Amino acid sequence: MEESLDFTPKFDEKGLIPCVATCDKTGDVLMFAFMNEEALNKTIETGEAHYWSRSRQSLWHKGATSGHIQKVTEMRTDCDQDCIWIKVETNEGACHTGRKSCFYRKIQGNLNVKMEFIDEKKLFNPDDVYKG
Amino acid sequence: MEESLDFTPKFDEKGLIPCVATCDKTGDVLMFAFMNEEALNKTIETGEAHYWSRSRQSLWHKGATSGHIQKVTEMRTDCDQDCIWIKVETNEGACHTGRKSCFYRKIQGNLNVKMEFIDEKKLFNPDDVYKG
Repeated sequence: MEESLDFTPKFDEKGLIPCVATCDKTGDVLMFAFMNEEALNKTIETGEAHYWSRSRQSLWHKGATSGHIQKVTEMRTDCDQDCIWIKVETNEGACHTGRKSCFYRKIQGNLNVKMEFIDEKKLFNPDDVYKG
Repeated sequence: MEESLDFTPKFDEKGLIPCVATCDKTGDVLMFAFMNEEALNKTIETGEAHYWSRSRQSLWHKGATSGHIQKVTEMRTDCDQDCIWIKVETNEGACHTGRKSCFYRKIQGNLNVKMEFIDEKKLFNPDDVYKG
């Protein structure tokens, strides 16, 4: 059983490690994304969340376009060191739909029933923030 | 932009979807694992967390061996529907090391510095719980 204090993150076969970002005030999960080694190192060095964008295949400094920087207040890894959890302080939404959290819809206890909005409110207009 | 109330989870090329389990009381991330379609459906049907064990390549009813069942109190999906977040009520630890959370080590703001224990306390002895 590996329980050491050496940080030896395990990247998958694509060189990525999953990362969960939660709000440091409410504990709500804001978003889920992947980091490659560069993104992980940059997050540690700068204290601001960096991810690997699988759709754009490039380093993604969260907030560089939208202004919604995520300041990391705590960073942990799990028992297998194959996942990262960051608590972040953010000035606005984490979600590209304009909401605070990407997890704004609740799944019901029955697959035949539609989901329910937890949060319908948009904090910003995505069209204003993400241009071009 | 997909913002409907239809639950259409996106499984990856291995048929898996990542799942974050948080403590419904503290908001702490307890564990991170994957679900396949069967695990996801069983979680919804039974209200107890089921995952897909990548190491054992089998359906994993969390707590079936250890007794540490995770009762799902809320279930959400994210904007891309490629991740699941469950809030769970659990009677003891989620981690195979005996701790409440798998995320019991904190990464420092410098890669050359060792991690720090957030939680050293074991709630149970893994040797007693996981036999054979």
